[in-house]
Amino acid sequence: MQTELSKQLGVEHAVFGFTPFPAVAAAISRAGGFGVLGAVRYTAPDDLKRDLDWIEAHIDGRPYGLDVVMPAKKVEGVTEADVEAMIPDSHRQFVRDTLAKYGVPELAEGEASGWRITGWMEQVARSQLDVAFDYPIRLLANALGSPPPDVVARAHERGVLVAALAGSARHALKHKAAGIDIVVAQGYEAGGHTGEIASMVLTPEAVDAVAPLPVLAAGGIGSGRQIAAALALGAQGVWLGSLWLTTAEADLHSPALTRKLLAAGSGDTVRSRALTGKPARQLRTEWTDAWDDPHGPGTLPMPLQGLLVADAVSRIQKYEVDPLLGTPVGQIVGRMNDVRSVQAVFDDLTRGFEQAVDHVNRIAGRSGQ
Amino acid sequence: MQTELSKQLGVEHAVFGFTPFPAVAAAISRAGGFGVLGAVRYTAPDDLKRDLDWIEAHIDGRPYGLDVVMPAKKVEGVTEADVEAMIPDSHRQFVRDTLAKYGVPELAEGEASGWRITGWMEQVARSQLDVAFDYPIRLLANALGSPPPDVVARAHERGVLVAALAGSARHALKHKAAGIDIVVAQGYEAGGHTGEIASMVLTPEAVDAVAPLPVLAAGGIGSGRQIAAALALGAQGVWLGSLWLTTAEADLHSPALTRKLLAAGSGDTVRSRALTGKPARQLRTEWTDAWDDPHGPGTLPMPLQGLLVADAVSRIQKYEVDPLLGTPVGQIVGRMNDVRSVQAVFDDLTRGFEQAVDHVNRIAGRSGQ
Repeated sequence: MQTELSKQLGVEHAVFGFTPFPAVAAAISRAGGFGVLGAVRYTAPDDLKRDLDWIEAHIDGRPYGLDVVMPAKKVEGVTEADVEAMIPDSHRQFVRDTLAKYGVPELAEGEASGWRITGWMEQVARSQLDVAFDYPIRLLANALGSPPPDVVARAHERGVLVAALAGSARHALKHKAAGIDIVVAQGYEAGGHTGEIASMVLTPEAVDAVAPLPVLAAGGIGSGRQIAAALALGAQGVWLGSLWLTTAEADLHSPALTRKLLAAGSGDTVRSRALTGKPARQLRTEWTDAWDDPHGPGTLPMPLQGLLVADAVSRIQKYEVDPLLGTPVGQIVGRMNDVRSVQAVFDDLTRGFEQAVDHVNRIAGRSGQ
Repeated sequence: MQTELSKQLGVEHAVFGFTPFPAVAAAISRAGGFGVLGAVRYTAPDDLKRDLDWIEAHIDGRPYGLDVVMPAKKVEGVTEADVEAMIPDSHRQFVRDTLAKYGVPELAEGEASGWRITGWMEQVARSQLDVAFDYPIRLLANALGSPPPDVVARAHERGVLVAALAGSARHALKHKAAGIDIVVAQGYEAGGHTGEIASMVLTPEAVDAVAPLPVLAAGGIGSGRQIAAALALGAQGVWLGSLWLTTAEADLHSPALTRKLLAAGSGDTVRSRALTGKPARQLRTEWTDAWDDPHGPGTLPMPLQGLLVADAVSRIQKYEVDPLLGTPVGQIVGRMNDVRSVQAVFDDLTRGFEQAVDHVNRIAGRSGQ
């Protein structure tokens, strides 16, 4: 499937795959899509460098991109310690009590948390960019608002397209005004940070708001039928994140979490502030229930909540404490029911797309399809 | 656009239009779709008879259907007075206080409430059916679960297809087991009672769950692009409700409410229990905010909430008290921006569908489209 955007980026299919795993990103690009590596977990520039080197060695020269989390609002001179100091003791106690209730073991001395607030801070994102701009990335995506003007300019100087996620037509228009090249319209059903407006409504609204800027549809897409639907809605491609979590190349480090993803239905996710303080869709667990409980302390605003729960989430994941174990994932999780290679998943997408086009042509009475 | 279902029902386009207004239902069928009259407001059989007579006189012999609200669970020997007695005084006081705060005038002596719980009770729905089965209706839809077996049998004896709304694949399978002919998959973005799963995910799940039973996609659909998307997802047609509320033939009895609908964006609805006690998408107002406020008394379960607020809602609507004035409507309200005839709206749907099919064919590289 070819759109103006896929032609511009030199990919065979207008399928953009977001993933934290270099092996998945490379496999998506090799399959004819466009792999986008999520950089938020790279707090050390050398780790990112190592993984981008790996991608370069395994992507057969295909194009790929990077996704960073750069807050739209700049916070000057605030350290992690400053943010730590803003967290109420009662919330820390709630974390301790909840972990104790489920018998979650402590991390070993000096064992780093897997998920740190630092990945969300602008200086870290900038150090990621310093690394990434030495590589031939073709796309830079930002998950929290438009990136700062100097970052957009720096990307454009290098011929790198800039994409930004939007949950409403209003957000999409802000991105356009900020000189962004591609809007990723992230529907309610998507994994991770989402708004309230579902893809069926959001995609065409975003398309019409920012035309002729291209829009990628994100949220609820995991089959060729859904790709055909998104393209019918006017998107120039689709942005898939959840679907790759259960591929063979993904490295969740947790067989229990993979089992939960494979078993979950479309109704087993929740849009909760438990992870970061902003609403993000994830597996519903007893952990998210504890934070969403009206009788509990409730969540703190971003970035406090993320910092508050970082170690707890690491402990839950490391020790695979089943009732608490979760991950950001969209409603499409209900269709992620077996572990397959990225190539096999991709082949299903493109074959399913062709079948869906045939199907719609039959309904439309277009013969010769 | 022709599917097996539209052929079976003898309509030109697989577009089903749900509406409480006879003039809208007739105009949808005359335009080549399938009009479905919502019967919930007909508490007196003669009123329904009068409006079905009107439809018969104005529909040019085209097929149409009826939508009733028949609870899946039978409640024996419970009167409206019994239900009234279950409502706490504190909730009644909250209604009085909220209406007083906004200066909502009383109804005149003996003035009937426009919306009564009785429309939701099984005996009323059965009296509606006694009337409707004397007319050549082709479809009977039920908004709350599968209708009772004897009603399904009675419909089938008369060659009337039975449809039921479902918010999940599990609900859809229950309908299939109950002998229902058509599942209406109602996505999160839909107006009225909805579940959590958005149309992009729900439609294909329902389609695969009940195949070969036909599924109609409902929720978020108000353009030809969205119809093409729904059909790509595997639906045999679309079920549109909100879109007709701002047509010239609709009779909302409230210019202020029409203005609110025309002005509302896709983010101006909320899924709230304020109206009936079950989550239903509607315009977000200070009335829904009051019921959804965690510091307020909260809503009562169905059917108590509906009975509690019936007179209040009538007063708000009659006196057009702007901050409280709302109605069930889906996220597609953001695209309902002018008053046009049903025929003009319908022409846009079919023209937009053809354009969307052309568009997808170009992306798929199908020449000759």
